[in-house]
Amino acid sequence: MTRTVERPQNVDEGATIGYPPEGTDPEIGDDATIRSGTIIYADVEIGDEFSTGHGALVREGSRLGDDVLVGTNAVVDGDATIGSNVSIQTGAYVPPGTEIGDDVFVGPNAVLTNDRYPVRDDAELEGPTIERGASIGANATVLPGVTVGENAFVAAGAVVTEDVPADALAVGTPSEHEPLPPALEGGNDI
Amino acid sequence: MTRTVERPQNVDEGATIGYPPEGTDPEIGDDATIRSGTIIYADVEIGDEFSTGHGALVREGSRLGDDVLVGTNAVVDGDATIGSNVSIQTGAYVPPGTEIGDDVFVGPNAVLTNDRYPVRDDAELEGPTIERGASIGANATVLPGVTVGENAFVAAGAVVTEDVPADALAVGTPSEHEPLPPALEGGNDI
Amino acid sequence: MTRTVERPQNVDEGATIGYPPEGTDPEIGDDATIRSGTIIYADVEIGDEFSTGHGALVREGSRLGDDVLVGTNAVVDGDATIGSNVSIQTGAYVPPGTEIGDDVFVGPNAVLTNDRYPVRDDAELEGPTIERGASIGANATVLPGVTVGENAFVAAGAVVTEDVPADALAVGTPSEHEPLPPALEGGNDI
Repeated sequence: MTRTVERPQNVDEGATIGYPPEGTDPEIGDDATIRSGTIIYADVEIGDEFSTGHGALVREGSRLGDDVLVGTNAVVDGDATIGSNVSIQTGAYVPPGTEIGDDVFVGPNAVLTNDRYPVRDDAELEGPTIERGASIGANATVLPGVTVGENAFVAAGAVVTEDVPADALAVGTPSEHEPLPPALEGGNDI
Repeated sequence: MTRTVERPQNVDEGATIGYPPEGTDPEIGDDATIRSGTIIYADVEIGDEFSTGHGALVREGSRLGDDVLVGTNAVVDGDATIGSNVSIQTGAYVPPGTEIGDDVFVGPNAVLTNDRYPVRDDAELEGPTIERGASIGANATVLPGVTVGENAFVAAGAVVTEDVPADALAVGTPSEHEPLPPALEGGNDI
Repeated sequence: MTRTVERPQNVDEGATIGYPPEGTDPEIGDDATIRSGTIIYADVEIGDEFSTGHGALVREGSRLGDDVLVGTNAVVDGDATIGSNVSIQTGAYVPPGTEIGDDVFVGPNAVLTNDRYPVRDDAELEGPTIERGASIGANATVLPGVTVGENAFVAAGAVVTEDVPADALAVGTPSEHEPLPPALEGGNDI
C-alpha cells in the first residue's frame, strides 16, 4: 500500500518517499541522504543537503530549509516550519505548529509540545517557536506556545514553561533564565 | 522469519501482525489503522478503532480497549492492561505490569517504569497504575508501583515518585501535588 | 542499496547486519537474537549472547562485550565501548565516545550526551563514562565527560552534570549525590 517512488538522491532501500501513496509527492532538493526506515509524507517541501538517520519521520505540511538533519527515530509530526542548517537529533519530537529558525540544534530525545491541556475539551494547539541560533538540550521539554529567543541555550533536561530571552541560558525544571556564560557565546554553525 | 498475516483492516505493508510467527494471532477489532513498521505481537487483544503511528510496538500479553492510539515509535512492552479512548503519544514507553484506565493521555517520550531497583538482585517488577482521565505530560517519568489518580494531571517533565491524588496537578522533580487549576478541570475527551 | 548478509544467528527478516554495504562486516558472537528493524553497522564487534529489541541501531566503531541487550529503538551511535552484561533499554541514546563498564543498566529513554556546546564552534565531543555496576534511570540525562562511578545509581529523570562517586545515589536536576540507601546496595546482576 505504501509507494516508494523514484530515487534521484542517495535514498536507502526501505525508505519511503511519499506517504500515503495517494498524496502529492514530497519535494526534496539536491544531495539528499535518506537512510533506511525513514518516511517522508506527501505534501512536504525540503531544501538541499537534507539528511536523515534511520527511521526518521517527516509528516505532511512540513517545510524544511537547506542542510537539515532529522536524526534516527526523530519525528517532525507535520505542519512544522523549519529553517536551514538545523539539526534535529535522535529521538527528538517536533509537533505540528512548531516554527524553527536557522542554525538551531534540538538534542536527543528533546520534546517540543503543542498541547497545554491534553484530554481537556476545546484545547487549542499551539506549537513553540525556536528562534535562530538557539539550542535545545538533550531530554529537554519546551511547553506549548513558548518562544526560545535567538542564540538562547536550553540546558539538558530543562523544562521550559515561559519564553526564554535571546542570548539567555535556561536551566532547571521549570527553567530559570540567566545571561549566557562566555563558553556558550560565539558562533552558531552546527 | 517474521510472518505477516491476513489484513482485514487498513494495515500498511511493512507492518507485522503476529510476532513471532509461532505464536497465537493477535485479536484486533474493527476499523483499525496500522501504519508501516508497526509490530503487534502474538497473544494481544485490541478493541475497535485501534490506530498506530509508524514503528509502534505492542508486545505479548497486552489487552487494549477501543479507540486506542499507539503513536510512532511508542512501545507497549507487554502484559499491560489499557482501557478505551487512550492516546499513547510518540516515543512513550509503557512497561509490563502497567494498568491504564479509560480516557488517558500519555505524552511524547513519557516513560512509565516498573523496576525500582535495576541491576539489583531479587527486585520485584511493579508497573504503575494510571487511572481514568489522567494525563501524563511529555517527557514525564512515573516510578514503579505509583498510582496516578482519576483526572490527575502530570506536568511535562515531572518525575512522579509517589501516588498522585485524584484531581491533582503533579509538577516538578520529584513532583509535588496541588489541586488542579480551573483550566485543567473539565472534560476528558481526547 | 542496503545489504543483508548471511545469518548465522537468530536474526529476523527485516534486520540489517552490515550497513552500509561497502563497509566491513560486523563481527557478532554466538547465540545472538536480533529482532526486526535492527541495524548493525559495518566495523562493529559484538560478543556472545547479544540481543536486541526491534529497530535498535548500533553504528560504526562500536565494541560490545558479551550478554548485551540493545532495546527497541535504542541507539548506540558509534565509537562506543561497552562491557559485558549490559542492558540498554528502549529508546535510550548512547553517543560516540561513551565508555560503559560491565553490569550496567541504562533505562528507557535515558540520554547520554557528548556535546557540551552544541551549535558552538570548535566544541570538543566528550562522551561520558559509566563504570561497572552503575544504573542510569529512566529518562535520566548524563552530561558530556561526566563519570558515573562503580555501583552508583542515577535516579529516574535525574540530570547528572558532575561526576557521581562510586556507591552514590544521584537524584534531581541537577543531581545531588548521597550514599546509597540499603535497598540499592547489593548485587549487580541484571
